[in-house]
Amino acid sequence: MVVFNEKASNGCTKSSSPSTNISKTINLDQGDPTVFEPYWRKTGDKCTMVISASDSMSSFSDDAGNLCWFLEPKLGDSIRNLHREIGNAKSNGRHIVVGTGSTQLYQAALYALSSSPDRTHPINVVSAAPYYSQYPEETEYLRSGLYKWAGDAYTFDKEEDGNSNYIEVVNSPSNPDGSIKEAVVKRTGGKLIHDLAYYWPQYTPITRPADHDIMLFTFSKCTGHAGSRIGWALVKDTKVAKKMIKFIELNSIGVSKESQLRAAMILGTLSDNSYRKFNSNKQDNFFEYSQCLLSERWTKLREVVNRNQLFSLPDYPLEYCNFTRKLTQSHPAFAWLQCKEEDVDCEKLMIKAHKMVVRGGVRFGAEKKYVRVSMLSSEGVFNLFLQRLSEIKGNFN
Amino acid sequence: MVVFNEKASNGCTKSSSPSTNISKTINLDQGDPTVFEPYWRKTGDKCTMVISASDSMSSFSDDAGNLCWFLEPKLGDSIRNLHREIGNAKSNGRHIVVGTGSTQLYQAALYALSSSPDRTHPINVVSAAPYYSQYPEETEYLRSGLYKWAGDAYTFDKEEDGNSNYIEVVNSPSNPDGSIKEAVVKRTGGKLIHDLAYYWPQYTPITRPADHDIMLFTFSKCTGHAGSRIGWALVKDTKVAKKMIKFIELNSIGVSKESQLRAAMILGTLSDNSYRKFNSNKQDNFFEYSQCLLSERWTKLREVVNRNQLFSLPDYPLEYCNFTRKLTQSHPAFAWLQCKEEDVDCEKLMIKAHKMVVRGGVRFGAEKKYVRVSMLSSEGVFNLFLQRLSEIKGNFN
Repeated sequence: MVVFNEKASNGCTKSSSPSTNISKTINLDQGDPTVFEPYWRKTGDKCTMVISASDSMSSFSDDAGNLCWFLEPKLGDSIRNLHREIGNAKSNGRHIVVGTGSTQLYQAALYALSSSPDRTHPINVVSAAPYYSQYPEETEYLRSGLYKWAGDAYTFDKEEDGNSNYIEVVNSPSNPDGSIKEAVVKRTGGKLIHDLAYYWPQYTPITRPADHDIMLFTFSKCTGHAGSRIGWALVKDTKVAKKMIKFIELNSIGVSKESQLRAAMILGTLSDNSYRKFNSNKQDNFFEYSQCLLSERWTKLREVVNRNQLFSLPDYPLEYCNFTRKLTQSHPAFAWLQCKEEDVDCEKLMIKAHKMVVRGGVRFGAEKKYVRVSMLSSEGVFNLFLQRLSEIKGNFN
Repeated sequence: MVVFNEKASNGCTKSSSPSTNISKTINLDQGDPTVFEPYWRKTGDKCTMVISASDSMSSFSDDAGNLCWFLEPKLGDSIRNLHREIGNAKSNGRHIVVGTGSTQLYQAALYALSSSPDRTHPINVVSAAPYYSQYPEETEYLRSGLYKWAGDAYTFDKEEDGNSNYIEVVNSPSNPDGSIKEAVVKRTGGKLIHDLAYYWPQYTPITRPADHDIMLFTFSKCTGHAGSRIGWALVKDTKVAKKMIKFIELNSIGVSKESQLRAAMILGTLSDNSYRKFNSNKQDNFFEYSQCLLSERWTKLREVVNRNQLFSLPDYPLEYCNFTRKLTQSHPAFAWLQCKEEDVDCEKLMIKAHKMVVRGGVRFGAEKKYVRVSMLSSEGVFNLFLQRLSEIKGNFN
């Protein structure tokens, strides 16, 4: 049995026994970021939230002056401080709209950009392939008369129905392939949603503060707290922000106060403990810890991929990260694996022959030879993944 | 100045100074149930939640066997125990689907009852007027091709478009008017959603355990924790439950874990401390406390209404409550006030002349002489409401 969890050169994780559960099906499909749990376990009481039965009972926030009437002021402060510290987005002068995860905010943004009394046709929604696999279904499931999914931005017929309006979702770094993306349609009448869920230092070098009309972020991918369902949008235009708030009002009358308060506290500790103290103690700083951990995982994965010669992975350029002040590569949350052999259904291969649930390329608007594999699973699952991948032999079909 | 907050005969609230802020506009529009906050303040540490940074990070629940993959098992247990103790709904053999408030679950139910590949027309959604003012907008805002708002169930044209399918929302006790409702269309092909947000002992006698296909409840109206955004549906049919879960997956990838855990704890204390111990200590038992408090408020309101003779209120029958084992009347969460004079826009009258923001009858599919007034405001606001109502003189126009 190959042991993949020996200490890496930079040593941010401890060695542990290799898993022996070789017959179990492992799930690498979702992006549930359980990889960061050990870090938070070590923080002890510092980030423990205590909430009494009479706290935060109202659905209104205490900040009557805020456009987003359900946003907890402490969460707004933590978000602005964090973006300032990390340098990944301009937050000054933007409205913050909190949502039940960035999934709800994506739909709030579609609503805000499409709802108007004189709309007669649904507006086209596009994203450059490979796009996030949930965009099509999240856009289509209610068969809205306001917007409809129109597929890959690269092949979008701009003049369809004589209607030049469209919404382009720019997901950068990209889920699934980790690449840095920009808008591709670039036409008058186009409106943009920037989904920046993975624009954090552990995944990619922070090269500039993002500065777009609507930028979506999520607590889940920043710190790993997926269970809290907290996302936020930074929105330039007041009218757009108001419509997004209206959507969340109609969709769920606001956002969990408990989750907002917990996110405020946890995100607050990240900016207390980041930039200036970077490198002071590798185990203390969340971004140092998580960057190191993902870098190790990617090193191990590339070793396996290079050894068996059956797959390929994207290459990422070395870039200067303004946050870490180092030249670094991307270490995305997902591996976008390509089977080198022709005509292979890579998803089927993974599940049938090797008991690994992954997401096939077709769902991302790409070919079936691609699969998306989570790099954020627990250590045991990740090690089983490496082990099984290394055991795959050629002649797939 | 009239003082309305003297101790009532059954004495469940303490006397406090009358508010002197007579020029302030007061908001009686929303149903934010801040009235219950003093009770929860007195519970001290018993219902305090402590959650460490590494708790509940995953969006999945620990109960892999549950259809609703994001439901916290503890919350499911608390919900079933509570319904068993209160006797207000059959929960055994039903699926529990948790939602971001019952607002999200209402939309999940519409989706579940309408989505099918062969649907060519949106299904009609009706509710008997006066209906909850948010149903039309929550049904219409995305211009779904699956469902559309078709108004008052009493005037619903059943054969419109040759399509006899419909969804009827039965809201009982009714928001706004507190009455007990049943389905009115009663046709083959009809599907029902029972919104039972107010079917709790503080609002209405519990006469039988409700037993319908889809029943919606909310933490907000049960205990006053509106900020948590927790609702639940009891669902008989597995296929319908699966589709509701799918909706919540697409809409927000589950529901806040922090809120679920807090609701589990607080609802848990309600069933530990209810039926059998009822009447043991009025201040300790939440339903005793809240029933007494609303009963007092209704007594005071009826006194004012009887005195000035300008308004009327619905009458509610005395019924035997299986939970309290007493004959009681309803004490709804809203007062459905009717101006006796003809052609009065009661909402305008309230806001313009008396600085009270209330919700006008037209939004509920009723006449403008009606307004809905929250009975769940804080004590200070409620006293100002009584004071201002008592000062209204005749000759409105």
